[in-house]
Amino acid sequence: MSQNQQQALELIARGTDEILKRDELEAKLARGRPLRVKAGFDPTAPDLHLGHTVLLNKLRQFQDLGHTVVFLVGDFTGMIGDPSGKSATRPPLSREDVLANAETYKAQVFKVLDPERTEVRFNSEWFGAMGAADMIRLASTHTVARMLERDDFAKRFGNHQSIAIHEFLYPLVQGYDSVALEADVECGGTDQKFNLLMGRGLQEQHGQEPQVVLTMPLLVGLDGVNKMSKSLGNYIGVTEPAIDIVNKAMRIGDDLMWDWIELLSFEIGIDEAARLKADVAAGALNPREVKLRLARELATRLHDAAAAATAIAGWQAAVTGQGDTSLLPLQDVAVPAEGLRIAALLTAAGITPSNSEANRKLRERAVKVDGAVVEDGAALFGPGFEGVLQVGKRNFARVRLVARG
Amino acid sequence: MSQNQQQALELIARGTDEILKRDELEAKLARGRPLRVKAGFDPTAPDLHLGHTVLLNKLRQFQDLGHTVVFLVGDFTGMIGDPSGKSATRPPLSREDVLANAETYKAQVFKVLDPERTEVRFNSEWFGAMGAADMIRLASTHTVARMLERDDFAKRFGNHQSIAIHEFLYPLVQGYDSVALEADVECGGTDQKFNLLMGRGLQEQHGQEPQVVLTMPLLVGLDGVNKMSKSLGNYIGVTEPAIDIVNKAMRIGDDLMWDWIELLSFEIGIDEAARLKADVAAGALNPREVKLRLARELATRLHDAAAAATAIAGWQAAVTGQGDTSLLPLQDVAVPAEGLRIAALLTAAGITPSNSEANRKLRERAVKVDGAVVEDGAALFGPGFEGVLQVGKRNFARVRLVARG
Repeated sequence: MSQNQQQALELIARGTDEILKRDELEAKLARGRPLRVKAGFDPTAPDLHLGHTVLLNKLRQFQDLGHTVVFLVGDFTGMIGDPSGKSATRPPLSREDVLANAETYKAQVFKVLDPERTEVRFNSEWFGAMGAADMIRLASTHTVARMLERDDFAKRFGNHQSIAIHEFLYPLVQGYDSVALEADVECGGTDQKFNLLMGRGLQEQHGQEPQVVLTMPLLVGLDGVNKMSKSLGNYIGVTEPAIDIVNKAMRIGDDLMWDWIELLSFEIGIDEAARLKADVAAGALNPREVKLRLARELATRLHDAAAAATAIAGWQAAVTGQGDTSLLPLQDVAVPAEGLRIAALLTAAGITPSNSEANRKLRERAVKVDGAVVEDGAALFGPGFEGVLQVGKRNFARVRLVARG
Repeated sequence: MSQNQQQALELIARGTDEILKRDELEAKLARGRPLRVKAGFDPTAPDLHLGHTVLLNKLRQFQDLGHTVVFLVGDFTGMIGDPSGKSATRPPLSREDVLANAETYKAQVFKVLDPERTEVRFNSEWFGAMGAADMIRLASTHTVARMLERDDFAKRFGNHQSIAIHEFLYPLVQGYDSVALEADVECGGTDQKFNLLMGRGLQEQHGQEPQVVLTMPLLVGLDGVNKMSKSLGNYIGVTEPAIDIVNKAMRIGDDLMWDWIELLSFEIGIDEAARLKADVAAGALNPREVKLRLARELATRLHDAAAAATAIAGWQAAVTGQGDTSLLPLQDVAVPAEGLRIAALLTAAGITPSNSEANRKLRERAVKVDGAVVEDGAALFGPGFEGVLQVGKRNFARVRLVARG
């Protein structure tokens, strides 16, 4: 194995949970031809967050090494529903829903993937033409017992929760996608391991070399505890404004920061990350400097370098009370013609969750307008007002008040 | 309910194991319009025996009452294999096999069914046009747990014997056939009850009135112990010569005879059967007379009245040693030019299983040729000989010896 190939292997292995099998991956890389790297996406949840980009980043690394990413939209499987890791049967989506979601999906993933080295495919291409008999033949390749080995099925079966029969077909469908695509590698989350291995078996049954299965861990969310998810609210969406990306990223804990760097950063290599960590541990480096680098990189990836620079500068102005707060994005807030008191305004702008919380912060002298502590809770802010509202150091918004229509 | 309808109901109920639900059947019959009575046939075993005719007879009774039989050839499901009552997965048949078998099947069932009131259908008609997505939707209507309630699946699952996933689709396919055919009634063996009930559920899901499910018991074979089956050799095939039907039927035990009458006879009604049984029990009637009526009826059904009469007369001539044995069918047996001794000849004609058994019978003076006990074991029978060979009372054949080619 050449030094280049060794480096490529190390880059690919970065942050992975498992590579099955590593020697097969080495052999495939050693052939020196571009690999077909498959990842399947269930188009039921088209609003991506940073957690989804862990996998996209890995795919991007393959692209940067010259390989082709096959981005498979499970439009056909979306009509079945994905039972992975769920404890209840999902209702099937309509074809129209699925296709609309898939379009939204594509728009988002190209924030990370290189469109030039991405083959976007839809599995309706082969399954749409497949007859009932072929589906039955596909079903004949595996046993009920084998399917019940999957963790979530085993758990539901053990708990007497219902599993619809079609849910047993889904892993086979996903596996057959690898046959149709002649995938060399398939990447997915650790929760997808069982399904990814199905592809290996079916490829062998169809006389193909089995794909290498590469699993990525789940990204922990802003709370530092749970995996990032929309339902828990601990996420950064890939379409959020740059200032929100920076503001949220700057709030994560230091431990979580190192995990995020491993899974999300291209700029900070493995060796450099180790050095930075040692410097922080030795007190020679403020972790905030590292976090700022990460925040800038994320905002740049999801927007661009200029938007990231503006967001960072605005964030610093707001948090430090120095600098140009006009760099912060301007948010319109509708108010009555007679105006609102500060507490009601903070809640209307989404900075505080309630007026009572806003009043508490006011009594703590933690509320500022344009950098100055607000003393008078009774003063009214009416249409035409423009300025930076702030609660504590890190909750802020630059607002312009408009008359409620 | 009119007297006619009451009589119809009694005829339909004769010999059944279960009717689900009887009040629904009464309601359907009371409407006075012809019902669509479905029975599905798996075309993997095209050589029918009397056991299969139990169901065909029931269908024929419906026809005689003016209803339409929908004879469904599972040509599509034949490509899946029928796991009913089996402990191992059946390999799928090719489409060509299935269709050839189905033709053989049709030729045999019209020995019992009235072709004028039979609608022969193939489920490839609707499943051949069905896409993979529809099959998945069908699979979504039932749960894994529900399917594992079926006796044979439960047993195999409990014994860690493999169940292929497609086997879970088969009952759904069979059930959907009832939807496609808009069946009012479905008849099947007791071992099919689970699958027949699937049809009820799916019909309701499709807004149809659920079919009545009528199950027939399995016919006990010639041995009086096991259900009739080809593999056990305890059967009468529907294409066997009339003499073999008569000869085999005349050998069954008296107890079994009453069961056969209930399930196989049209001529001997329920009330008459009870009277005959009482007469036999009282010693007023020789059961052989009843058995001869049954044998004649079966030979007539599977051939015709003339063939049955000839077979009965031939059988009586051979067994009693009186009458015209030329009524027995002539069977060619190839022998060497120099001829065979009687023991070897009996074995060559299939009357004894081995020469040693034939020699034992010879020593017992149980071997006859043309009604005369054979004394000389060394005498040779050569090409040109024609006569009745007999071992004991009931093993016989009329043979003509021809030179081995």
